[in-house]
Amino acid sequence: MATGVRVAVIGAGSAQFSLGLVKDLCLTESLAGSQVCFMDVNAERLEVVYKLAARYAAELGADLRFESTLDRAAALRDADFVINTAYVKGHHHERAIRDLTARHGYYYGGVNLGSYHQLRLMLDLARDMERICPDAWLIQSGNPVFEGCTLMARETGIKVCGLCHGHYGYLEVARTVGIEDPERVTWQAPGLNHNIWLTHFIYEGKDAYPLIDEWIATKGEEYWRTHVARGTHDVQMSRAACHQYRLYGLFPIGDTVRRGGWWYHTDIDTKKRWYGEPWGGPDTELARPLFVKYLEERFAEMARLAEDPHSSLVDAFGAVKTREQQVPIIDGLVNDHEGVFQVNVPNHGALEGLPDDVVVEVPAIVNRKGIQPIHVGALPRKIMLECILPDWLDMERELTAFMEGDRSMLLWNVLQSHQTRSYEQGVAVLKDLLEMTGHEELTEHYSRNTDWL
Amino acid sequence: MATGVRVAVIGAGSAQFSLGLVKDLCLTESLAGSQVCFMDVNAERLEVVYKLAARYAAELGADLRFESTLDRAAALRDADFVINTAYVKGHHHERAIRDLTARHGYYYGGVNLGSYHQLRLMLDLARDMERICPDAWLIQSGNPVFEGCTLMARETGIKVCGLCHGHYGYLEVARTVGIEDPERVTWQAPGLNHNIWLTHFIYEGKDAYPLIDEWIATKGEEYWRTHVARGTHDVQMSRAACHQYRLYGLFPIGDTVRRGGWWYHTDIDTKKRWYGEPWGGPDTELARPLFVKYLEERFAEMARLAEDPHSSLVDAFGAVKTREQQVPIIDGLVNDHEGVFQVNVPNHGALEGLPDDVVVEVPAIVNRKGIQPIHVGALPRKIMLECILPDWLDMERELTAFMEGDRSMLLWNVLQSHQTRSYEQGVAVLKDLLEMTGHEELTEHYSRNTDWL
Repeated sequence: MATGVRVAVIGAGSAQFSLGLVKDLCLTESLAGSQVCFMDVNAERLEVVYKLAARYAAELGADLRFESTLDRAAALRDADFVINTAYVKGHHHERAIRDLTARHGYYYGGVNLGSYHQLRLMLDLARDMERICPDAWLIQSGNPVFEGCTLMARETGIKVCGLCHGHYGYLEVARTVGIEDPERVTWQAPGLNHNIWLTHFIYEGKDAYPLIDEWIATKGEEYWRTHVARGTHDVQMSRAACHQYRLYGLFPIGDTVRRGGWWYHTDIDTKKRWYGEPWGGPDTELARPLFVKYLEERFAEMARLAEDPHSSLVDAFGAVKTREQQVPIIDGLVNDHEGVFQVNVPNHGALEGLPDDVVVEVPAIVNRKGIQPIHVGALPRKIMLECILPDWLDMERELTAFMEGDRSMLLWNVLQSHQTRSYEQGVAVLKDLLEMTGHEELTEHYSRNTDWL
Repeated sequence: MATGVRVAVIGAGSAQFSLGLVKDLCLTESLAGSQVCFMDVNAERLEVVYKLAARYAAELGADLRFESTLDRAAALRDADFVINTAYVKGHHHERAIRDLTARHGYYYGGVNLGSYHQLRLMLDLARDMERICPDAWLIQSGNPVFEGCTLMARETGIKVCGLCHGHYGYLEVARTVGIEDPERVTWQAPGLNHNIWLTHFIYEGKDAYPLIDEWIATKGEEYWRTHVARGTHDVQMSRAACHQYRLYGLFPIGDTVRRGGWWYHTDIDTKKRWYGEPWGGPDTELARPLFVKYLEERFAEMARLAEDPHSSLVDAFGAVKTREQQVPIIDGLVNDHEGVFQVNVPNHGALEGLPDDVVVEVPAIVNRKGIQPIHVGALPRKIMLECILPDWLDMERELTAFMEGDRSMLLWNVLQSHQTRSYEQGVAVLKDLLEMTGHEELTEHYSRNTDWL
């Protein structure tokens, strides 16, 4: 028997994400009867999403109801699940920050103020949920997952689970090294969000790491020399990934690859060497505008389809479930359709060597009992000391700065950038970032400890 | 009644330190009857120290016996206390490293391989003690105290206590801000060695921090502009110290001041601005040669006195106790002459937020019961996150690299230097450092994980 639930989608104007969610709900019979309430601050985008969702579900004859609202509190009312995918400031603001810091001598966003607007929204949302729907699950589906989920889990009593798709990078590893059916790989890649490491990689009952070693030895150089990225994010098998594997003994998965040490990121030539042609990975002045343009074109196309009564949305978008984990997790929690998922939840000992209240990315069993992380034990000490624990300290500093409104911690963060060359440069770029249009609230917030001689 | 003990001094060729120790023993009647065994690998220096000690004690009529040996095991036999002050490679080797790294573009030792030779000696010594004098106290009196004491305490069953004199910096703070009798200040400055913070500063029953604030406000700028350092290490009231105080809310004490962020250390002009004229603090190309020359002249003068039968050593060196804590601590442990000392011992909860097996610098009550650290509670969160915990991770990385012989962790350390500008530069300077004369054993030791693409 189907159990309908009420799902609130915050930041629903991300049309591709929202339509994917609707698709998964339509194709999950056990969730028939559910209601979805889309909420966004952008009425136009909201309208597009609402229309697409309603028409798509109608085409498939799915038993779902849809609402849309600009009022977050209204969306939260009676919600069983809240999916937060909101991106407050957007790509154009990000670009303006990069342009400003470039004028201070920084290459491609080599310095920043952290994620104030995202953290503010997440904390406000979780606090609203405490008031309006205290028993609902919050499924955090936008960045920063690590910092944001840790913040919300610590500061509120809300059940928080963060999701990301970076972990699917293991499939690309498997495909590239010649595994015929990547779906049949047994794998595990725990850590922190955007900092996960392939501890298990098993195919047909055998350790498949030797296939990676052989690929690097026999095909690596040729691949790095000749491979042309299929998309800006196609870096899973890049020289940078394999270099990290050599240093750490475990393969980095997903977004882990595009981070790594500062030395991969000093300039466009260096980035191309480590992340490949033609863009040098997703985080360059070549890749990012393309990616944003793609998102905008995609939205425009969806808006067009929403207004075209003759289009078939099922033809346009297909009727196959996405790879997103939101709906299967809801189905597991509500209907006991058990599964194992890659989640971001408070540690409580799942990953050794981190405090209980830090949100870790680990596999979890999801069923009516809840989201129960699997104890994965310890990562290699070198990975803990050079990757996980430094990230943990960065997170703690960001959350402390945020909770205390301590401007001196923003300065410290700016000075820690490997690209900052002098104290004066750090102070100057911080000043300009604080005075930037759109940062008025942020600057007001970080008003403690501003007098440094 | 006096209780004689047997004290082994390892690295006794440091004449000033050894003579200070002898002086304190001579002037501590309750330790009459003690034996001191000087051990060093340098026979010539050892001879000077032995002669000075014997003649000084004889002049004072002190009941002490002295031995000297080149054989460490012989020195340890029947020892109740082992004082390790050995500096394996010495200042000239340090200089050669700085010259080499300068050729790779680094300013004044901006990159290094860690403290392999010191750690090796400390661990070997502690292991010898386990075998030869397992109940003796090891009083570590040379750097690196933090890393070395943590290593020895973890890897052996020896009782370890590290000492440093940096904490006396609080007296200079008190003097400078106009406190009449600095000795009557009630103070506390816990943390990690070379990373300690003045949590309490009380004079005549009142918080004396307002005196610091007033001094900075009314006299700081003039002092920073006009003060001429009395010695290379005279930086306790420097602009850098007061800047750290502004950022952190607590005054940094002793060697803490000369560290701080990379931005104080980019070049000689910057260092002079933050640490004052004429040397820019102790860690510059101007100060260090002077300091080393002073040590050498001092030793030459002591060697001359040792050979001059007509000299009075008491006239030359006085008969007042030093400020060193070694002998008072021995007296406390042996004779229950209780005192509070600034020690470096395994944490066990004394300083909140650090593991039990990390050596912290805290006050401790010393008496026949042992060296019992005082629970100082927590340091401010910003100090923990920006100063203490990053230092803790650096220590863990250095000890892990050392214990595992992992060369890739040396590379990571080199790359972490804020002065390293590219991966290639880091690899090149590491290669040259490993191939340097005097690093043969080190290079052999770090032979794991050497293949990085």
